[in-house]
Amino acid sequence: MDNPVAVEVTRGPRVESFHRGAGAVVDADERVVFAFGDVTKPVFPRSAVKALQALPLIESGAADRLGLGEEAIALSCASHSGEPAHVALALAMLAKAGTDVSVLACGAHWPLGGEAAWALARSGGAPTALHNNCSGKHAGFVCLACASGVDPAGYETPEHLVQREVKAVIEDVVGERLDESRRGIDGCSIPTYAIPLLALARGFARFGTGQGLGAVRQAAARRIRAAVAAHPVMVAGTGRFDTEVMKLLGARAFTKTGAEGVFCAALPELGLGLAVKADDGAGRASEVMIAALIAKFLPMSDAERAGFARFVAPRLLNWRGLDVGSLRPAGAIG
Amino acid sequence: MDNPVAVEVTRGPRVESFHRGAGAVVDADERVVFAFGDVTKPVFPRSAVKALQALPLIESGAADRLGLGEEAIALSCASHSGEPAHVALALAMLAKAGTDVSVLACGAHWPLGGEAAWALARSGGAPTALHNNCSGKHAGFVCLACASGVDPAGYETPEHLVQREVKAVIEDVVGERLDESRRGIDGCSIPTYAIPLLALARGFARFGTGQGLGAVRQAAARRIRAAVAAHPVMVAGTGRFDTEVMKLLGARAFTKTGAEGVFCAALPELGLGLAVKADDGAGRASEVMIAALIAKFLPMSDAERAGFARFVAPRLLNWRGLDVGSLRPAGAIG
Repeated sequence: MDNPVAVEVTRGPRVESFHRGAGAVVDADERVVFAFGDVTKPVFPRSAVKALQALPLIESGAADRLGLGEEAIALSCASHSGEPAHVALALAMLAKAGTDVSVLACGAHWPLGGEAAWALARSGGAPTALHNNCSGKHAGFVCLACASGVDPAGYETPEHLVQREVKAVIEDVVGERLDESRRGIDGCSIPTYAIPLLALARGFARFGTGQGLGAVRQAAARRIRAAVAAHPVMVAGTGRFDTEVMKLLGARAFTKTGAEGVFCAALPELGLGLAVKADDGAGRASEVMIAALIAKFLPMSDAERAGFARFVAPRLLNWRGLDVGSLRPAGAIG
Repeated sequence: MDNPVAVEVTRGPRVESFHRGAGAVVDADERVVFAFGDVTKPVFPRSAVKALQALPLIESGAADRLGLGEEAIALSCASHSGEPAHVALALAMLAKAGTDVSVLACGAHWPLGGEAAWALARSGGAPTALHNNCSGKHAGFVCLACASGVDPAGYETPEHLVQREVKAVIEDVVGERLDESRRGIDGCSIPTYAIPLLALARGFARFGTGQGLGAVRQAAARRIRAAVAAHPVMVAGTGRFDTEVMKLLGARAFTKTGAEGVFCAALPELGLGLAVKADDGAGRASEVMIAALIAKFLPMSDAERAGFARFVAPRLLNWRGLDVGSLRPAGAIG
């Protein structure tokens, strides 16, 4: 089945490019509220499930035993911009686990945040694994291992206790068995398991409401949502989609981007979970898709709706600042 | 008509993302040798036609009157990486026209080349219009105006002599009338006109062979091809697709990328012109598409074919250097 066109990219009078994709909105009773495209095909959720991957850190008591605060919990499910505050906090988490950057298996890359990258270069520095957008998640994995009395070495491999626990929690939350045939290696070297959008949306309805989860898991999910809502800059960075959307909407929306055009979200007050994937892996498309779904379902004040418009249909400015076109949702979400 | 899947992106055992698109291969007698997808729909060629946009600079005699060398001619059809050599040469071209960076209308952006960008930041510098990947093309436009005794102010607008001449040349080479209904504003603020892939491929067959062009235009095209083949680093930059492909294949292939997933190429010895566009605008897809077409038609030695394989099916390495998947051509070009 061909997925429909979900996002158009215009330039002057014409549609220059377009993105196909699929998406699902599911409520906490597992009813499909809205869907377009093939929502049953497993897709790699990548970083869009970092909040689920962070649940064992809380549930195990590791976060409390090491004294991790709200900001560290938010960073543990972040794709952060590598800003100084992100880097310092990831290092502080490792210190609480009694270790340092040398334990990280995520690899190094220049900060995602442009300003952070230029500042690092201007200072004569070079990126380390702490600047990797996944360093908070990895620091959380290391904290989980160390606080559980387990050697963190190899924590990124499918066989390590950390990844086995993470997999079991995701299986429970999304309600799907994840086996090797669904497994790839993520950009940060941990396993990523392909999951249908329908199951991801169901999982985020549960994550957003607690419904269908055990009491400990419910409390951990609530704590992660509260931490991210209180510190949205920790989960992404200055000017980035997740940070700016949650600064605008607060705890009414939990959103999380993933590589290759995946986005997951929860709208707790409505009991809804959302998941989308752009066929071609474009992040610009998945942002518009998830924003269009949020705008479709979440009641907003006029001011909120005005502030949110730039996520649903961003204008495209060229290098001189001229308005040359826009992105816009199309078809079922148009 | 839906364009077919042309490129797949794998991760572990699965196809994670895929790109649809269209492409055409046309010979100098205007015969369609190969095509997939809708090749009659006009698409913005963006920077893929910079070599055609540079023809008036040569044909008018402006390049010779100002004493522009081969490297400057290559830079005048470049999407360069903003390396020091690119920046210095663009400035030198402007000096020959009797002006400086203040005349450039392309806007500033950080160098496309990662190393060039980090080096600029480390030196405490900030990007200027000279670092814009289009600065060589713009310097060429300014040279054309100044050497023709025309005020360069507004050279980027459709009404200015420079853009009127550029449009007329493209119309002649591709064999299509270009009007306002086809016009958008490019990233560097000049007009871009939507053209069917079939006409773009025909245009590049003419550009590569001279067949169907007047004698002056033939000579100018030959000179541009020779300049780029001799200085491939000037047309893109260290490690970039166009530079590396032409370093490998020399004058046997002329290739030029354009934003939003467009690629054009000429294979002069075969008399072929090629043009592709990824529906979704992904550059990674258009690179694989044009590489697959080149590999399909151009006879290569075993060594050339081995060296070319990384353009047809690039491996994807993650931040730690692990091989996590690949891009690969699919369907009609698979």
